[in-house]
Amino acid sequence: MTIRFALLGAGRIGQVHAKAVTSNPQAKLVAVADVFEDAANAVIATYGGEYRDIDTIATSDDIDAVLICTPTNTHADLIEKFARAGKAIFCEKPIDLQVDRVRDCLKVVDETGAKLMVGFNRRFDPHFIALKETIQSGRIGKVEMVNIISRDPGAPPAEYIKVSGGIFKDMTIHDFDMARFLLEEEVDSVIASASVLVDPEIGKLGDFDSANVILTTASGKQCSISNSRRATYGYDQRIEVHGSLGMVAAENQREVSIEVATKDGYTKPPLFDFFMTRYIAAYAAEITAFISTLTNNTPPIPSGQDGLRSLMIAEAALLSVSEGRAVMLTEVSKK
Amino acid sequence: MTIRFALLGAGRIGQVHAKAVTSNPQAKLVAVADVFEDAANAVIATYGGEYRDIDTIATSDDIDAVLICTPTNTHADLIEKFARAGKAIFCEKPIDLQVDRVRDCLKVVDETGAKLMVGFNRRFDPHFIALKETIQSGRIGKVEMVNIISRDPGAPPAEYIKVSGGIFKDMTIHDFDMARFLLEEEVDSVIASASVLVDPEIGKLGDFDSANVILTTASGKQCSISNSRRATYGYDQRIEVHGSLGMVAAENQREVSIEVATKDGYTKPPLFDFFMTRYIAAYAAEITAFISTLTNNTPPIPSGQDGLRSLMIAEAALLSVSEGRAVMLTEVSKK
Amino acid sequence: MTIRFALLGAGRIGQVHAKAVTSNPQAKLVAVADVFEDAANAVIATYGGEYRDIDTIATSDDIDAVLICTPTNTHADLIEKFARAGKAIFCEKPIDLQVDRVRDCLKVVDETGAKLMVGFNRRFDPHFIALKETIQSGRIGKVEMVNIISRDPGAPPAEYIKVSGGIFKDMTIHDFDMARFLLEEEVDSVIASASVLVDPEIGKLGDFDSANVILTTASGKQCSISNSRRATYGYDQRIEVHGSLGMVAAENQREVSIEVATKDGYTKPPLFDFFMTRYIAAYAAEITAFISTLTNNTPPIPSGQDGLRSLMIAEAALLSVSEGRAVMLTEVSKK
Amino acid sequence: MTIRFALLGAGRIGQVHAKAVTSNPQAKLVAVADVFEDAANAVIATYGGEYRDIDTIATSDDIDAVLICTPTNTHADLIEKFARAGKAIFCEKPIDLQVDRVRDCLKVVDETGAKLMVGFNRRFDPHFIALKETIQSGRIGKVEMVNIISRDPGAPPAEYIKVSGGIFKDMTIHDFDMARFLLEEEVDSVIASASVLVDPEIGKLGDFDSANVILTTASGKQCSISNSRRATYGYDQRIEVHGSLGMVAAENQREVSIEVATKDGYTKPPLFDFFMTRYIAAYAAEITAFISTLTNNTPPIPSGQDGLRSLMIAEAALLSVSEGRAVMLTEVSKK
Repeated sequence: MTIRFALLGAGRIGQVHAKAVTSNPQAKLVAVADVFEDAANAVIATYGGEYRDIDTIATSDDIDAVLICTPTNTHADLIEKFARAGKAIFCEKPIDLQVDRVRDCLKVVDETGAKLMVGFNRRFDPHFIALKETIQSGRIGKVEMVNIISRDPGAPPAEYIKVSGGIFKDMTIHDFDMARFLLEEEVDSVIASASVLVDPEIGKLGDFDSANVILTTASGKQCSISNSRRATYGYDQRIEVHGSLGMVAAENQREVSIEVATKDGYTKPPLFDFFMTRYIAAYAAEITAFISTLTNNTPPIPSGQDGLRSLMIAEAALLSVSEGRAVMLTEVSKK
Repeated sequence: MTIRFALLGAGRIGQVHAKAVTSNPQAKLVAVADVFEDAANAVIATYGGEYRDIDTIATSDDIDAVLICTPTNTHADLIEKFARAGKAIFCEKPIDLQVDRVRDCLKVVDETGAKLMVGFNRRFDPHFIALKETIQSGRIGKVEMVNIISRDPGAPPAEYIKVSGGIFKDMTIHDFDMARFLLEEEVDSVIASASVLVDPEIGKLGDFDSANVILTTASGKQCSISNSRRATYGYDQRIEVHGSLGMVAAENQREVSIEVATKDGYTKPPLFDFFMTRYIAAYAAEITAFISTLTNNTPPIPSGQDGLRSLMIAEAALLSVSEGRAVMLTEVSKK
Repeated sequence: MTIRFALLGAGRIGQVHAKAVTSNPQAKLVAVADVFEDAANAVIATYGGEYRDIDTIATSDDIDAVLICTPTNTHADLIEKFARAGKAIFCEKPIDLQVDRVRDCLKVVDETGAKLMVGFNRRFDPHFIALKETIQSGRIGKVEMVNIISRDPGAPPAEYIKVSGGIFKDMTIHDFDMARFLLEEEVDSVIASASVLVDPEIGKLGDFDSANVILTTASGKQCSISNSRRATYGYDQRIEVHGSLGMVAAENQREVSIEVATKDGYTKPPLFDFFMTRYIAAYAAEITAFISTLTNNTPPIPSGQDGLRSLMIAEAALLSVSEGRAVMLTEVSKK
Repeated sequence: MTIRFALLGAGRIGQVHAKAVTSNPQAKLVAVADVFEDAANAVIATYGGEYRDIDTIATSDDIDAVLICTPTNTHADLIEKFARAGKAIFCEKPIDLQVDRVRDCLKVVDETGAKLMVGFNRRFDPHFIALKETIQSGRIGKVEMVNIISRDPGAPPAEYIKVSGGIFKDMTIHDFDMARFLLEEEVDSVIASASVLVDPEIGKLGDFDSANVILTTASGKQCSISNSRRATYGYDQRIEVHGSLGMVAAENQREVSIEVATKDGYTKPPLFDFFMTRYIAAYAAEITAFISTLTNNTPPIPSGQDGLRSLMIAEAALLSVSEGRAVMLTEVSKK
């Protein structure tokens, strides 16, 4: 069984997914769409397929699944369109920046019975999978606390910040998904503190570049998340999970494992400095998992609901910062 | 110049300080007091000095300084007594569990001009001093964020919990002091989440055994603290400080640095499992610093004000948990 | 420009190279040969190309280069055949187990002007390349000493040992090549000690499973190599290079970077347990380098001479063990 | 029971031992001797005791044991003198630089039944003790190979080199003792290679500054030792022991465990840069062990025979370098 794909959006992440699809013996890249036809054709030149516009793809019988890699503000519309067209959908996170819009979109997904997987790539990182497997092995007992440190190598430009939805919906949302993945219990309440310490431009846009968040579940499990838009030493991505019997931690990753010792000390190289190199294996595994989901007819995970829940936590965090109080997830979901 | 000491309280920590005093060529242990005279005599047998009761010590001309190692509820009274008696005072933390009582006590210290140093031993840990020195060297730029993970090897017995003042005043207070030491700016507001995950008995006493706290300064610097009364793998004491140019982290400590590799993987021994072995160098350096303070006539640090500020943060954390909101330090200080 | 390849030998390593060739936009797999035609066809089914026998390949105009992945005892004959046929040649190490046979073979290579690259894959490992780059940067000064620890996860079966040429020609030869790569000066003399500690069967075959070797250059630079056919904790591959200004070390590699801490200590997973997973990136980079060599018309490295020199060191090591003395390389080359 | 000590030699190492003796409740420093009476008096001022010359000490009834910390060329004579005087003897290594002289000296020790402990301090290092305990626990199975890397921070001055006995008797001798301690089988043969890479002055004196040695036992166990008189990054002291079931390694030590991460990478401080700080705990534990030996009337370890065996290995290594061959220990012992 071969899954026939169309790629929507031929940018950076679209190219990564095109490569993953064409490396998979159970998948085929049939069509590529992009508002910039040249970008689409560049992908086609490397990975094959042909140019089709989005409407054509929606009505193409030789397309089983679409990869939505277009700008965020088109995601929800495209999900609805392709759900109705009967295609399986892989959509980059987030579905939308507004909780209500996501909820509406997921209703369409539900009604059409479409398969939808949301691109929280970190669930497919081999190191984080090893965390999960360690938890499931029982080796650290019952999970009690998760500590996440997640720092970007550098702040994105103002243009990006403007459409990003802010630090919680753009950056921390990955950590919220990791928290849910590892806590194995839904987050109940959120408290957060956020500042502008890295780039005053970010502050002028009403966003933050530094934040700490505490998530708590109904049974009292907790997750701390520490974020910054700056880490001069590379892409800092650490997670540790504490249980009743012990702890498991995933370490940072670097390109080469050497150490130089001189009179100034022992020095290891900086970390990976870009999310696409740090998570290269995760991106490939993610698409592999999506293809398996389709060939085996199993429910896609992370699901649309996973996308919604993390967005709700982001919304709650934002509210917590602005009102200086703990925010219950139920407050956000009631809106 | 030799500083002549009296030790008040001949328990575990009193013995540690007796050793530090008698190892120091500029200090002498003259007298030991304890309500259990046998305990005092055991210390005297090992470290010298003679038995005197507290009132006698207060009026002894051959005593320059006292080490207050008695139960917490006696600290403030003893500080006032010995401040009035014109003695220099080293007092184990906390001065008292109530902010108001501490404030009153410090008024007496101020009025009498007594020298008072409070026993936040971690400021004297060589690894944490190296953090501070790295900050001061400018190597990591301007401090922006501090992340503290501080987990006890195991929960104390209920009897201890009852008189401890609760997790924030008993355990986190050390982390609050570290935060102040490293942030180099006063904490402005506190948010905290606390749970009972380790021992239900602790919950029955109205206390918590697991907590996460976020401290924020006026300029937006933040400190996250993650606490648990349980760490099966030893006494987990990690601090990292993030600045505009980089990061400095202090690693955990273990007794021996070996690694065993077998088919099951690479294993290092657990950490130190007791605060008195983990911080053995800090305890000695603390008393050395106190003696230097007296011989050089410099202001003692950590001061009574340092003790007060950390207690206020603890009070604010407690209020934050109970009211589910950010608490300004000014709220606590106004009381 | 596209290099058209024939693969000779469709076994394990042949498959790795077939994948590398077909992933490279500048290369094409045209033909596959194997005495077991089914094996060849399995490779063809996955990676394309067609079946041709070796003689046909030698006379095929549409073949530019061959990958020799057949058993060791066929290497020298095949190199000569394809050198005469005007093909570029990549040959798995070793060229032959006998120094004289290699020398004769390289004469043919010289006379025909054929391009020959020998498969010392470790030179293409990103971590070892980083060692080399650190040396070249001048950061550790002038190289003085290299220390190599190289231990296999487990001893191979007797059948393999019989045709392997013994530990020095089969296993240590990789370390000899690394020593030459990093010392940047030819090895002058060799002393070695070898034992049977792991598997008595290996001893019955006249081979060893444990060895330590010291290589010395004319200027007195030294390299120590420690080998064992057993490492329960995985494939142990460490190299450190000491120079006048410092040291650079390449660390061991494992599949995932997690650490589990429990009452028994802190445990990381075992290392990679197989050379083909440990060196997966090196194998791919090696073929990429060979293709670049051909498209850019540069001399292939490691060359046939590199293969010869390491074999000579292995011969010298064997002689050192049997005669209990330091052996000069000139003794081996004079034979 | 209190052991009454005389210290012979009030230099650097003598002061270390004076401190150890006076910190031990079962020991007392009664007398100090030194050809420089001022040096002796400085020790006395800090640690107590009185000045006596060596002859007086030998006839003092109130002295149970002596610590020989004088120059190497006086050791054997002093051991004989105090053995005959019925004193217990702790002697810094080596007993003498000549195997024959040591053997004669040990005959006197035997005949007199004197207690003699030789100062191979590394046996008392807590990390190396942990290696030994791991071996004894059976966790790594039967010991097969030991790898020692031992590099001094910098070369000593020519004046020291002249009287040192050369690198093998001065520096490697500690590693020989460690090899014997950990192999748990006597060394049978030695091969070694040595060069002058660090300081040409050392070469002019007929000595080496860089060496690699392989020791082999009768059953084929091996130990590799890699030495240099230079390590810009500090005092490099690593040992790993490989057994049939796994490996145990002791890591390098540094004063503080911090790590600084910047755009240039992750940097830990250099190692301890001086043997007396690196082995501070070992020096104290060594004297504690000697005192226990006396109070419990148990045989002192390392014994005089331990001192002799390591010296013989050093002699064999020297012969191996000069003759370019494996040297059997029996050759040295037959002389």
